[in-house]
Amino acid sequence: MTEPSQSPVRTRLYVDSPLAADQSVGLDHERAHFLRHVLRLDRGDAVAVFNGRDGEWRAVIDGFGKGWCSLTVVEQRRPQSGSPDLWLLFAPLKKGRIDFVAEKATEMGVSRLMPVFTRRTDPNRVNSDRLRANAVEAAEQCERLSVPDLTEPLPLFRALADWPTDRKLFLCAEAGTARPIAEAMRATGPCPAAVLIGPEGGFDQSELDELGKLPFVVPVGLGPRILRADTAVVAALACWQSLSGDWTADGGDTRPPFRSSAEPTA
Amino acid sequence: MTEPSQSPVRTRLYVDSPLAADQSVGLDHERAHFLRHVLRLDRGDAVAVFNGRDGEWRAVIDGFGKGWCSLTVVEQRRPQSGSPDLWLLFAPLKKGRIDFVAEKATEMGVSRLMPVFTRRTDPNRVNSDRLRANAVEAAEQCERLSVPDLTEPLPLFRALADWPTDRKLFLCAEAGTARPIAEAMRATGPCPAAVLIGPEGGFDQSELDELGKLPFVVPVGLGPRILRADTAVVAALACWQSLSGDWTADGGDTRPPFRSSAEPTA
Repeated sequence: MTEPSQSPVRTRLYVDSPLAADQSVGLDHERAHFLRHVLRLDRGDAVAVFNGRDGEWRAVIDGFGKGWCSLTVVEQRRPQSGSPDLWLLFAPLKKGRIDFVAEKATEMGVSRLMPVFTRRTDPNRVNSDRLRANAVEAAEQCERLSVPDLTEPLPLFRALADWPTDRKLFLCAEAGTARPIAEAMRATGPCPAAVLIGPEGGFDQSELDELGKLPFVVPVGLGPRILRADTAVVAALACWQSLSGDWTADGGDTRPPFRSSAEPTA
Repeated sequence: MTEPSQSPVRTRLYVDSPLAADQSVGLDHERAHFLRHVLRLDRGDAVAVFNGRDGEWRAVIDGFGKGWCSLTVVEQRRPQSGSPDLWLLFAPLKKGRIDFVAEKATEMGVSRLMPVFTRRTDPNRVNSDRLRANAVEAAEQCERLSVPDLTEPLPLFRALADWPTDRKLFLCAEAGTARPIAEAMRATGPCPAAVLIGPEGGFDQSELDELGKLPFVVPVGLGPRILRADTAVVAALACWQSLSGDWTADGGDTRPPFRSSAEPTA
C-alpha cells in the first residue's frame, strides 16, 4: 500500500467519534496541545485518525481554539481489519515495567489486556487509566487500527471462572513440567488463545496445581533462563503471532502498511 | 535439578576469577556494598558465582573489610554448558531503551551483542561500560552461566565486512519484501545465526538495497504492526530460540535449573 499523493499524514490519533467523510472530530485539550505545540502542526495539516471500528481516515486540521482542536475527516486510508483473537493475562508489575507491558502487548497485537492478581503479585492495585493511556499511545505508534480492550483487574481464579471452553490459555511458568512453547503452540494450532504471565516472583505452587486442573490450560516453557515478566510477555506473544497469528502468511497482511515495496532481496 | 540441602544461595554474582573448590574470590567495593548493605548478608552466608567458563559454584562469605568482601568457593552447583550461537546486531537507542535491549537480549540468551551504527541511528556513541553492566546484571538474574560478549560499536557495513559465511543474518525491516519470520527461520534450520534490528526510524532504503545483496542476509517480517526497536529485539530472538535455539526439546535443558519439578499438568 502506498500513500495517495497528498500532504503527508503527520501523526496518528485514536479517537472515540464515528469516522466518515466530512465528519467533524473535536480533540480535547491534551491532544490539541500535542498537535499544536509539540508537533507544531497548523490549520490544513493532515493527520490520521482511527476509532477501532471504522478503519483509518485522513483528516485535516480545521483550527485550534482555547484548549481544543477540530478536524474534518476527508477520506479513508485503510478499511477496518480484523485482528488476532489473542488475550494477555498478566500480574500487575511495578510502575515502569507495567507501562512497558501495556505498550509491548499492544504492539504485539493482543486484543484484550487482562490484569490479574496472583498470590505473589506485589502491587495490589492497578492504575487502569494509565494502562489504557499507554495502550492508546502504543496503538497510535504501531499502526494498529484498534486499542486492546482493558478488563477490570480481578483475582486470577475469578478471571478464569467463566472462561470460554474453546480458548486455550498458554501458561508461562518457570516451575513444573511444560512443553517447549513452539511445540505446544504448533500442537494446539490456530484457535482463540490467551497467554498468562505471572508476577516477578513466579506463581505459587498451589496456583500451579490449581491451574493444572483446568482443561483449557496449556503449560509452556520459555527455555532454560528465568525471564523477567515483561520479557516473557513479548516473547510468548511473539511465538504465538509468528506461529498462529497475523505474522504468518495465512494471517492476512503480514507487512506494515504504507511502506515502500522496494525489495531488499536480490 | 534441586538444590543440595545447605544454607540457601542468596544471590548470583558474575566474577572474573577462576572458580574451583577452596579458591578465594575477592569482590570490589560495589559488590561488597551490595552484599552487606543491600542484601544484608553476613559471614557464612552463601552466594552463587559464575565466570562464563567454570560453571556455577556455591561460595561462602569469609568476611568484609573496608570496601571489599572475600568469598571462599565451596562446590560446583552446575557445570558450564554451551549456549546458543546467536548474535544480536542493533542500532544504539537512547538511554533507557538501550539499557532495555542489553537486559532483554541477555535474558533471551544471545552470545554476542554488537552495537552497529546505521544511517538513521540517533545516538552517535555508545556507553559500552553501561551496556556491559546491564548485561552482567541481567545474566546474574536470569540464571545464565555466561555474559554476552560485547563488541566495539562499528558502522553497520564495517561490522559486516568480514562476516562468517556460514552465519545467517536475519534482517528485521519494516519496508521491503520479507518472508514471515517463523517461515524463514524454519526454512533456514539450525545454524549459527544473528538478528539485525535497525534504529527507531528504520533503515534507509540504500541500506536495505545494500543488505539485500549480501548472500547471508535473510529479510524477515514481524507482522503488520510497526514494532519499536526494543520490542523487535525480544520478538525476533524469541522466534529464533523457540524454533532453533535452546527453547526447543533438542536444545538441551529446556527448563530453568533449581525449580521444583512438581507438575502443573494433570
